[in-house]
Amino acid sequence: MKLRTDAEHNARMKKVQAAQAKKVASKTIEKGLVIVHTGPGKGKTSAALGMVVRAIGHGMKVGVVQFIKGAMTTGEKAVLDAFPDMVEFKPMGEGFTWDTQDRARDIAVTREAWSEVKRMIADPSYKMVVADELNIVLRYDYLPLGEVLEVLSSKPGMTHVIITGRNAPEGLIEAADLVTEMMQVKHPFRDQGVKAQAGIEF
Amino acid sequence: MKLRTDAEHNARMKKVQAAQAKKVASKTIEKGLVIVHTGPGKGKTSAALGMVVRAIGHGMKVGVVQFIKGAMTTGEKAVLDAFPDMVEFKPMGEGFTWDTQDRARDIAVTREAWSEVKRMIADPSYKMVVADELNIVLRYDYLPLGEVLEVLSSKPGMTHVIITGRNAPEGLIEAADLVTEMMQVKHPFRDQGVKAQAGIEF
Repeated sequence: MKLRTDAEHNARMKKVQAAQAKKVASKTIEKGLVIVHTGPGKGKTSAALGMVVRAIGHGMKVGVVQFIKGAMTTGEKAVLDAFPDMVEFKPMGEGFTWDTQDRARDIAVTREAWSEVKRMIADPSYKMVVADELNIVLRYDYLPLGEVLEVLSSKPGMTHVIITGRNAPEGLIEAADLVTEMMQVKHPFRDQGVKAQAGIEF
Repeated sequence: MKLRTDAEHNARMKKVQAAQAKKVASKTIEKGLVIVHTGPGKGKTSAALGMVVRAIGHGMKVGVVQFIKGAMTTGEKAVLDAFPDMVEFKPMGEGFTWDTQDRARDIAVTREAWSEVKRMIADPSYKMVVADELNIVLRYDYLPLGEVLEVLSSKPGMTHVIITGRNAPEGLIEAADLVTEMMQVKHPFRDQGVKAQAGIEF
């Protein structure tokens, strides 16, 4: 690319632009998406939060239910609570399941959080619903996948639903429109002994 | 997991908790991280925005410079602009390089945006600086990687720097503390003809 002259570069970009325009023109469908963020890497919840911020900025009403987090104070809560008319933010978890050490209670908490998700999805005034760490409770069988798939298959057409957490079940991936896997290339926890820090992990 | 009794589950979680506590206790370092979000999948910029939201919520001052986007109105702008004392948000791009079709101008725009990033990183009152889509301008050789690495190596110790964009150069990955690669498992643009939508892509 370095060896190309400016004129050659600009001519090439004209072609790229035309190809890009054609590609964009062929995409005409607008629909509410089922989005899954999974994988062992970081950024699954953060990317969902980023989409929430974008949605709020476009005047869309958003619901966020957190299935695991809830006990600890997070940075996102302070910001999302500044938009009470736009976002309903519900950190409903009681911590990681190894902290609660009570499966019956974990299941009860999961049920309560899932009821909130269902309520939000059923209400078409919510344009985006985030079920944060839902994959974790599916993984522990705190909630049957079938129930989740049923709700997703009958959601309002324009509602976006974002589901996060590692180990997304195969059936959920099949039902989703957009699935991103976050892969860990380098992680300071493992490699350098760096602890979880404000602004990054919570 | 289904076959385990509640008591067995709870006993196992006690062990997991102890192992987890030990792991957390061994991580004692706090430091500003160089974070890279790369890969062909979605969520690179969204995850950076999510971290910005967390940082703001913890009272950290944040600077965001967008190298490519800028011409279009984004949802994130409306929200971040609601926190003028906490975030300096600078969408400085003029669109994708195939749209501008002017390399000399792209380089000038890149230089201006990079000056802003350098200014923010040099000022320790910024606790987090995002260089959104910086990898794209590195890829096009609009900015030499060496300059970026020099700034990163001399940044204030507690400042987090987040760099996004596909095709992160190898030298940047080596210099980073935390690198996540977003992989596309399923994408509605390709698979279903769904167009870019508010709240999701912008």
